[in-house]
This record gives sequence, structure tokens and C-alpha cells, in this order.
Amino acid sequence: MTAKLALHKRVRRRARSQAVSVVGKFGSLLKRVPIYWFAAIPLAAVILGIWDLAATAADPQGIEIPETLDADYVQGILNTVWILVASVLVIFMNAGFAMLEAGFCRQKNAVNILSKNLIVFALAMVAYWAFGFSFMYGTGGNGFIGAGGFFLSSGDPATYGLDPFPAGLPISVSFLFQVAFAATAATIVSGAVAERIKYDAFIIFSLLLVGISYPITGHWTWAGGWLSELGFTDFAGSTIVHSVGAWAALVGAAILGPRLGKYDEEGNARAIPGHNMSIATLGCLILWIGWMGFNPGSQLAADSAISYIAVTTNLAGAAGGVTGTFTAWIKDGKPDLSMSINGILAGLVGVTAGCHAMPYWGAALTGAIAGILVVFAVGFFDSVLKIDDPVGALSVHGVCGIWGTLAVGIFGGGNIVHQFIGIASIGGFTVLFSFIAWYAISFVLGGIRVHEEEEMKGLDIGEHGMEAYSGFVKDTASP
Amino acid sequence: MTAKLALHKRVRRRARSQAVSVVGKFGSLLKRVPIYWFAAIPLAAVILGIWDLAATAADPQGIEIPETLDADYVQGILNTVWILVASVLVIFMNAGFAMLEAGFCRQKNAVNILSKNLIVFALAMVAYWAFGFSFMYGTGGNGFIGAGGFFLSSGDPATYGLDPFPAGLPISVSFLFQVAFAATAATIVSGAVAERIKYDAFIIFSLLLVGISYPITGHWTWAGGWLSELGFTDFAGSTIVHSVGAWAALVGAAILGPRLGKYDEEGNARAIPGHNMSIATLGCLILWIGWMGFNPGSQLAADSAISYIAVTTNLAGAAGGVTGTFTAWIKDGKPDLSMSINGILAGLVGVTAGCHAMPYWGAALTGAIAGILVVFAVGFFDSVLKIDDPVGALSVHGVCGIWGTLAVGIFGGGNIVHQFIGIASIGGFTVLFSFIAWYAISFVLGGIRVHEEEEMKGLDIGEHGMEAYSGFVKDTASP
Amino acid sequence: MTAKLALHKRVRRRARSQAVSVVGKFGSLLKRVPIYWFAAIPLAAVILGIWDLAATAADPQGIEIPETLDADYVQGILNTVWILVASVLVIFMNAGFAMLEAGFCRQKNAVNILSKNLIVFALAMVAYWAFGFSFMYGTGGNGFIGAGGFFLSSGDPATYGLDPFPAGLPISVSFLFQVAFAATAATIVSGAVAERIKYDAFIIFSLLLVGISYPITGHWTWAGGWLSELGFTDFAGSTIVHSVGAWAALVGAAILGPRLGKYDEEGNARAIPGHNMSIATLGCLILWIGWMGFNPGSQLAADSAISYIAVTTNLAGAAGGVTGTFTAWIKDGKPDLSMSINGILAGLVGVTAGCHAMPYWGAALTGAIAGILVVFAVGFFDSVLKIDDPVGALSVHGVCGIWGTLAVGIFGGGNIVHQFIGIASIGGFTVLFSFIAWYAISFVLGGIRVHEEEEMKGLDIGEHGMEAYSGFVKDTASP
Repeated sequence: MTAKLALHKRVRRRARSQAVSVVGKFGSLLKRVPIYWFAAIPLAAVILGIWDLAATAADPQGIEIPETLDADYVQGILNTVWILVASVLVIFMNAGFAMLEAGFCRQKNAVNILSKNLIVFALAMVAYWAFGFSFMYGTGGNGFIGAGGFFLSSGDPATYGLDPFPAGLPISVSFLFQVAFAATAATIVSGAVAERIKYDAFIIFSLLLVGISYPITGHWTWAGGWLSELGFTDFAGSTIVHSVGAWAALVGAAILGPRLGKYDEEGNARAIPGHNMSIATLGCLILWIGWMGFNPGSQLAADSAISYIAVTTNLAGAAGGVTGTFTAWIKDGKPDLSMSINGILAGLVGVTAGCHAMPYWGAALTGAIAGILVVFAVGFFDSVLKIDDPVGALSVHGVCGIWGTLAVGIFGGGNIVHQFIGIASIGGFTVLFSFIAWYAISFVLGGIRVHEEEEMKGLDIGEHGMEAYSGFVKDTASP
Repeated sequence: MTAKLALHKRVRRRARSQAVSVVGKFGSLLKRVPIYWFAAIPLAAVILGIWDLAATAADPQGIEIPETLDADYVQGILNTVWILVASVLVIFMNAGFAMLEAGFCRQKNAVNILSKNLIVFALAMVAYWAFGFSFMYGTGGNGFIGAGGFFLSSGDPATYGLDPFPAGLPISVSFLFQVAFAATAATIVSGAVAERIKYDAFIIFSLLLVGISYPITGHWTWAGGWLSELGFTDFAGSTIVHSVGAWAALVGAAILGPRLGKYDEEGNARAIPGHNMSIATLGCLILWIGWMGFNPGSQLAADSAISYIAVTTNLAGAAGGVTGTFTAWIKDGKPDLSMSINGILAGLVGVTAGCHAMPYWGAALTGAIAGILVVFAVGFFDSVLKIDDPVGALSVHGVCGIWGTLAVGIFGGGNIVHQFIGIASIGGFTVLFSFIAWYAISFVLGGIRVHEEEEMKGLDIGEHGMEAYSGFVKDTASP
Repeated sequence: MTAKLALHKRVRRRARSQAVSVVGKFGSLLKRVPIYWFAAIPLAAVILGIWDLAATAADPQGIEIPETLDADYVQGILNTVWILVASVLVIFMNAGFAMLEAGFCRQKNAVNILSKNLIVFALAMVAYWAFGFSFMYGTGGNGFIGAGGFFLSSGDPATYGLDPFPAGLPISVSFLFQVAFAATAATIVSGAVAERIKYDAFIIFSLLLVGISYPITGHWTWAGGWLSELGFTDFAGSTIVHSVGAWAALVGAAILGPRLGKYDEEGNARAIPGHNMSIATLGCLILWIGWMGFNPGSQLAADSAISYIAVTTNLAGAAGGVTGTFTAWIKDGKPDLSMSINGILAGLVGVTAGCHAMPYWGAALTGAIAGILVVFAVGFFDSVLKIDDPVGALSVHGVCGIWGTLAVGIFGGGNIVHQFIGIASIGGFTVLFSFIAWYAISFVLGGIRVHEEEEMKGLDIGEHGMEAYSGFVKDTASP
């Protein structure tokens, strides 16, 4: 009883005489608005204009349930359920990338990396809905870029080159699956430019990549563009998603330069260990299951091929994990956990282009080779090219994305010359686009890299005013 | 060989002469049993009485597989698979809430929060099975509360107002999906009362909320009660799940009062930073994918609407993440990670009521407004109402749950007056019930808040006798 | 503009004059290769020989989509989608075990545990593909061991005792589901031998367990061997998966002996607290949802039983969580988080054998009893048997696996004598196999336990040359 009274008194005491202070608090809002954000106003005007077109949106649910379940309808619902589940798995990969990248970086930059991964997915969703999906799949364009049906405003599947449901997929689930892929490309960039890029520079670049560049190169293959007519095969995106992310990241990382302390006076690379191997490992395992949406979902239908693709995908990931671990063990004398992780991811990236067409042993071999490649590629970027990539994204997604696309020509019945043309043209365009985009952003923002003092103290304080692990004592002497 | 011998000796040495000490150890059990737990005995008797009725349980698997696959059967299996998968996603939200809430609190209270989240789900499952599901959906009651078929003892779907499988869902999967929702309501409470509530007070309240209060208000809408007859629309529970949890939390947080040190001498709110932004972000991303079971699963069937709902849900979450981030950026000058997280969750909560009926742009706008609302609501609770909510649950689930329910009247074809009546009646009942429940518990346990010294040292030591991060040096000077 | 120039200069300066150093760096590779790894060469030769047989692999996608969707085809696709999803959930359990085990151990051994969990899944996948699946399900063997179709080389389902798709499951998804189970058995071992076993000893043992021992005992029941003919029932593997893992772990933990510091001079057990309860709790919740693939997926078809099984599974897990928490509370005076976690897992393990055949109340009771058992079992191993099991794996998977298998005879219509024979024969074989395997490995590697100094410093530095949480200050005085 006395406890109840005491509680009451405490509540009343706190609430007294403080309500007035709130007006002053809210009055101080808006005082530190970065001026360049007002650039958003004309952009918003453009978006609102397009939005107006979207107001004639399709009937929400779109499709009537038939009186009797015919074969097409059943297949259509099977497709819908499966691709929706696959989309969930691919979207879950955002959590995988966030944990992997944060874990591989230092604790003083963790908030920054986590923030980037969250906002980039949210922005990618909005941008891909507004125009990215139309640039990629809209049938109102040409062989270079698609157009039409912005903001998912069209209820006609033909606007996006889709067969009508129930023979094909509902527009909604097609969009959901594709937007998850688009966000992946941007997330790959996040890792390679981590621990030194300005937050605003990164999110502007991501918008441009997801909204414009990725849809254009994706259009060339997955929307019946010139590369698909040539015969280039990239089933689930070793090149179209993974190496695109890596090329964009390569340009960014090269322009940014290495993190402070990464190279000593003689230019020798120094290891900068990640701060949380537990969440990095969790990230790897989340990505592993996410890939079971990524690759089998790319069949875009529920049929018996999906489980075949799931097995080739798993075999390649496993083989990459084994060879990555043992290669690092032989090379450095210790089984390095980060190479087990990168080996698994390398195998998964490698099999992505040909997972539907390779025999099991071809998939396992593709993954095994990717697991070896990634170990040497990490050393190559680190010590030869001197490009600082904190999480190994260039090696995993770039080198192994290219390897996997070529492997379709070796184990999957593809034409290796066509594969090479696809890799080179998509890579060339992405490098060019990224170069222009990074420099344009640098021009607008006055550089894309944080100040030295901020980098020393960590981007969490500098960019976000908070730390990731409050209440723990940190070792500030560590690099 | 010598190594083998050494191993052997070590094992044998340890095992010698110690087996006797065990009897004494086990003899000291039961010595510190909190006396009030013996109150469980009459409760157990009641449960066993009802259990007896349950012994006439339905045939485990219930339904025969037909000789030929007719249309109803196929649709029934499609429904079963989809809703089972959706249930898994919603149950996974427990992990999301656990990581989010733990991450946003201090490390000295992490074990307590994790424990609460685990036990509340386990208890919710048992209570909802025993009576909650019957109170909510049992057709043996009236417009206020349901009854009948306790302990899932009835094999007749009509007992729970269900269409028979295969036209409808199996009873089992209906229960599974609904119990996951019920547990969510209790989990929301957990966050707002964190870092100062007694463990036993919380779990008793959760039992009452999940077992009695939530089923009653849920019955009014989702089981054909008076609100559904009125025309109130809450498709997946912005009000029925989220704001119910928030109202119960509001009463609890107000009675508890703020954490020690939350307000200074002049009553100004002080920030108490969370201890682990990595797991908080992970929690947000788990919740995001969980919502793809929560909302599309609420269609309670596998049809083409599920992917439409998935897209509205994602657009709202993304839009909320974007506006939450930028609102905080403009307001405070920094893009605050916790506001990116809360913005995403706000958007998801907001779209929950109308995700099936809104056009895409309406869903995006609902989410965008929720993302702005949540930033100001957090400040409002913190600085104006002086209600201390460590994780922002009242703003995310309460304010945005209400907003989302009203938004059905704006963008989703609902009647805004009916929406308001639903919000007010469900909120009013929950506040009344919670007020009585919290005070009754406080009376029985002699208060619901831990002692000051315990709060200072952390609830992990005081309530659980363990710490979350053994082996790390903590900064005891932090708040 | 000046920022751009500065960036450029920095990049160019770093890249200069350092490209030559790379040859020397790569030249020093291979210098610390552990000599016994060359034993891999003859093994590789054997594998390549079998591989040659695999080159005649089946057509990748295997099955034609029929012109019209007949009933068998629809059921086949439903099965494929559902079992693929279930496989994803079971594979996700690797993340659950990794987080659980790492969290329950000390931070100085976290990298080692995470590494083990990653590599064991990758190796299990390769070994089970190469020969494990054939030893378990190949119809070319006898009642003791299967054979035929190594490397999934056969396109004929009868090779693996499978009904042809669409009446049954595609070979690919059968393999995927089964390999996930096989890996679970090895992962269970990982926890019990943690913090003192050599990395290479563990992975060799895992290969033997997953590739040979587990398939043999699994063959006896799940592939129509002598135990299934006898009438032994183990629906989803309380014995075949969980107790097998625990028996193998028991032998390993007994041979290894306890961790340094686990027992004081008088032989009294000392608590060695885990380092990260947040990820341990996350692991528990991941395992919980993984079990919704594990048990309902074991129906091996998409029918109405799957949701029934999902509910029995959930009720048992919940009941185990409740009784585990309260038993520990009564026993020790505090609700111990690790006992909430182990109670949930105990309930889930317990219901695994009979989840398809028990009434709801029987499942709940099975789980409730498992939750009580596990608390006392942990104390029993710790203080009576003096077997040091850092994560409680022997209690959760062994004791409760046995209990659950017997419970089929009590609540699930099974014959308790047959159940006992199954438990004893499978346990006996596994113990014998493990004993031989551990000693053989110890002989080859010169012991299976790390040196004392390495154990003191932590296996992360000793075995992997890295630490899990760089940048945090650790408390080296903690045990």
C-alpha cells in the first residue's frame, strides 16, 4: 500500500511545473538544417508531378478470385506465394549485410554503417517504386532504358513486360522481388566505402545507383534489351546485381582513398580488425538463407526447378566456405573466420549467374574456385592495388561476380564470349556512371569524405552524435 | 599418445571423490521460493479442471487427404502453407522486439529485457491456448466476449467461427497466427516499462492482457462483435494489436514513473542512450520482414491480394524510414539512427489498419506521415508528458497506431467517425483494464517497481543474478 | 574543388612505389602449412574418383512442367515449395546454434565457436552430398547402411527410396531438407566441446559424424531399416538427430575433460558465465522458428497436418520455457535467463519425436516435463557427473531427446519398449563410433585439446589469430 502511494507521489512530482519548457524546446528546431537539403524542393516538385499520374492507381487488390480454381489460377497463386516468400528472404538480406558490414568495421563507426544500411533500403524502395522499376522494366522505352508506369501506376502487366496473372506474376510481387534486388546493389557499395564516407554523399549516390544506373544495365538483360538478344546469361545477377555494386564501390573507394592508418609510412597494408565477429557471422548466415530467395526466386515461378537451384546454390556456398577457409589456413597458417565468411559469400555470388543451368558438380566447383579466388583477391586489393575495402566487398561481389558470370560459359552451357561482353559492357557503364556521380556529388557537397578529426573520433559521433555501444569501455588505442 | 594419457588422467582426477557432494547441493533447493508463487496452486487447479474438458481432443491431424485434389482442397492447402509461413514470420517478430528493446536499453538491464521477451511469448502461447483464443473467437459468447472450445479442445471449426477446411483454414493454423498477434501486444508493453519494472509484475500483467483484455477488444472487431457491425475497419491491427499494447504500456509507464536519472533537478529530460545499436538495428530489420507475415497474412488466405498488401506495407515502412530520418535530421541537425529505426516501425504500424485497401500512394503517404509523427511524439512524451518510454513504444505503436486507423478513413475508404469510435472504445477499455490490473498487481506484490538500489545496479543482477556481457569492462559512470 | 584535388593526390601517393612488394608477400605463402593437411591428398583422389561417376549428372531441372496442371503436379509443387521453405528454416537454425553457443561461452573463445559453426555446416553439406545422403537413403545397401547415387548423381528417385515427383518430392529438395538435419547433429557437438577443443579435431570429427555415423543410424529408421520395421517411432528426430548429437558430444566432452577453472580444488563446479546473453537469446528465438521447419517439414508433404504439427511444436516449446523458468526460479531463487532459453529448447527437442501424433495437451505436457528435466539435468552433468558442457547441450538434446522419444509411447500411441530399443541401439552405436573416432583423431593429431596456455589466453588468439570484439576493453580477471 505504501509502495502504491510512493509511486503516485513520484509520478506527480515529476510532472509538475515542467510542461511549459516544451515550447522553447520545439522552438529551437530547424536551426541546424543543412542548407543543401533545400535542393530537395525542386526534386519534390518533379516527384509530385509524376505522382499526379499515379493517382489513377489500379484497384488495390487487382484480381478477382475465380469461381472455380482452374489450372492457371492455381499456378498463379503458387507463383505468388513462392515469390512473396522469396522476396521476404531477399529483403532479409538487408539485415545480413548490415550485420556483416558493421561487424567487420570498428565500433566507432558502427552506427554510421547501420544507419546507411537502413536508409539505403528505405530510399531504394521509394526510388525504385517512383522510377527505377519503370526504367528497368517499363515497355515504353527502348533497348537502352525502359519507361512508363511510374509509381506502379499502371494496372496493365504489359506496361512492365509482365504476363498477366494468373499465367504470370501479379505486378505487385514482381515489383517487390525486383526492388529487393535493386537495394542489394546499393548495399554492396556501403561496405567498401565504409568508415570514411560522408553520410549524405553515400545516400545521394545510392539513390542515383538504384534509381538510374542499376535499372539501365538491368534493362539490357532482364527486360529483353540488347544483351539478352546477344545471348548473355546472368540468371540471378552475378553481374547485374553483384558486380554492378562492386564496380560502383570500386570507383567510390578509389576516389575516397584508404582509411587513416590503413597503410604505414612504407605503404604496407595494416590489418584493421572488425569489432564484432558474432554479428558478422550472423550476417553471413542470414545472407546464406537470403540467397535461397535470391537464386531460386529468380525462376519467377513455383516449379520443380526452384529446389534444384536451391541445391546448386547451397553446394556452391558450402564449397566456397571450405576452400576459403583452407586457402587462408594454408596461406596464413590460421583458419581466419573472416575468410570462412567471405568464402561462403564468394561461392554464393559465384553460382548466382548459372545456378539454374549448372550440374551439381559444376556448381560446387564454381563455388570452390570462388572461395580460393576471394582470399587472393582480398590480398590483391589490399596490398597491390592499395584500394582499401574494409569488408572485402570488391573481392566477394566484384571478382567472384565476374568469375561466376564466366563460369556459366564453362559449366552452364553459356557462350563465354557473350558472357565477357556482358561483364565488360555492364561494368564499363557502371564505372562511367559512378565516376560522374561520385565527382558530381563531391562537387555539390564539397567532398565526399569526412574530415580527418571526425574519422579519428569515429563517424558515429561526427555524423550521428551517438555511439553504438554506450556503457562499455573502449580501447581508444586500437586503430 | 602422451597427450591421450594426460587427457585421461585429467578426466579421472576431476571425477574422483566429488559425487557425494551432490545430495547436499540438491537438498538446498526450494529454500528461496518466493511465497506468493504458491498462489499458482489454485490457478493450476482451475486450469486442470478445464484441461479435463480438453482431453477429448480432436484427432491430431484432423483432416483426410482426398483421393482427388479438388479445387477447395488445393485452395485449403495453399491457405495452410501461406498462413503457416506468415505465422513463422510473425513469431519471428519476438526476436525483433527482443533485440530492439534490449539494444535501446542499458547493458545493465539487458538480461531482464531479454528474459521478459522470452517468457512473455511462452506464457502468451499457453494462456491464449487455454482461454485467450476462446475468449476472442469462441462462438459460445456474446458481442462483448467469446467463449467455448478452451484448450483448442473442439474439432469443430464453427466453435471458433471458422469455415471448415478446406474452404477455410485449419483450426490449428488459425490459432497459430492469432497467438502470434496476441503475444505482440504484450511485447509492446515490455519496451515502455523497461529498466524499472519487477519481473513478476510484468509477467502477471502480460498474462492478463493476452489472456483476457486483448481477446475482449479483439472480439469486438475480428470476431464479428459490435465494432465490426458498426463498420470499424482495422485490417491487421493498428488499433487492435499495436495501440492496445501502447495503451496498456502507457498506463504502466505512468504508474511506474520515469527511470532514475531520466529527469534532472529542473525536470528536463536527459537522453539515456541504448547499449547496443547493432542488435537494435537487427531487431528493426527482423520486424520489417515479420510485418510481411503480419499484414499479408491477415488476408487469412493465399490469394493475389497478399502481394499487394506486401507492397503497401513495404512502401509505408520505407516512407516512414525516410521521413523519420530526415525529420530528426532537420530537427536535431543529425540523422539519428534511432529515429531511422522508429520511423520505419512507425510507417509499418501506420499502414497496418489499411494495408489492404489503400492505393500505393496512400500507403506511402500514411507511412511518411507516421515517420514524421513519431519523431515529434517521442519528444512530446519525453518532454511534455514526462512519461519515460525507453524504446519509444508509445509513439511508434500508440500514436502511429491511432494515426494508421484514422488513415483508413482518409486513404482506404473507411468512415472516419467509425474509425474514431473504434479507437476510443478499444483504447478506453484497455486503459481501464490496465489501470485496474496494474494496481491489483501492485497491491498483491507490494509495488510493481524494483527498489532504487536495484535499479541503480541494474535489474540483471537484482532480478536475475547474472549479467548480459560478462568479460567486458563497463562504464559505470554512464547513466 | 580543392577537396577533389586533395582526394586525388592522396590516392596517387598511396599507390606509388609499392606494387613491387607484392611478389615477396605472395612468395611467403605456404610457409606455415600444417603438415598433416597433406593427408587431404589421398582423400581428394578418392573423392575425384567418385566424382567421375557424378559427371553423368541428371538434367539440371529434371522435370517437365505439364501442359495441364493435374492433381499430382499441383500437390508436387505444393510439396516442393513447402519443403523448400522448411529447409530454409532448418538451415537458419545454424545461425541460431551459432549465436546460442557463442553467447553462452566466453568472449575469448567466440571466434572459435563461430568458425566451428560455419565450417561444420559447409563441410556437412559437401560430405552429405558426396556420400552421407547415399549412406542414409541409398537403396543399394542393406538394413545397416545405404549405398548408391553418390554426389546426387542419380536422376532416378528410386535410387534414394523416393517416390517420383510429382507424387513425391523432387530429389533436390529431399536432399536439401535432409542435409540441414545432418548438419544439426554436428552443430550440437560443437556446443558441448566448446572452449577447449582443437579446431581441426572438431572438424574431422564432424565430417565422420555427418558423413558416416549419422547416416547409418538414420538409415535404421528413416530409410526403412530394421528399427522402422520393429515399430520405433521418431517423427522428426528427438533421437535420430538430437540425442545422436548429444551422445557424440558426451563422449567428446568426457574425453576432453572440463575447462580449466571449471572445478575448484574441492571439485565443486564453478559457474563460467557466457559473454553475450543478447545473441544467446536471439539464437534461441531463431531456433524456435527454425523448429517450425524442422517438425512440420518432416511431414515431407504440404497437407493439413503441417499446421497441426506446428501447434504441438509451439505449445511444447512454450510449456518448456515456462516450466524451465519457474523451476530455476524455485530452485535457485532467481529466474535464470539461460534456463528460460534451455527450457524452450528442451520443450522443442522433447516434442520432436511425437509432434505429429500427440494431442495438444500431450505435447504441452511433454514440453513442460522437458523444461523441468533440463534444469536438473544441467545440474546433474555439472555437479554429479562432472562433465563440463558449456552450453547445456547434453541436457537439452540428450536428456530431453530421450525423454521425447519415450513420450511418444506415453502420449503419442507408440510402444514404449520399441522406443527404448531405438534409443538404446542408436545411442549405443553412436557412443561406440564416437569413442573410436575421437581416439583415432587424438592419435593422429597428438591430442584433441588445445594447450593450457592457449586455453587461458583463449582459442581465438591461439587457433585463429584474431579476437571477436576488437576495440573493447576486456576483463581478463573473469574466468
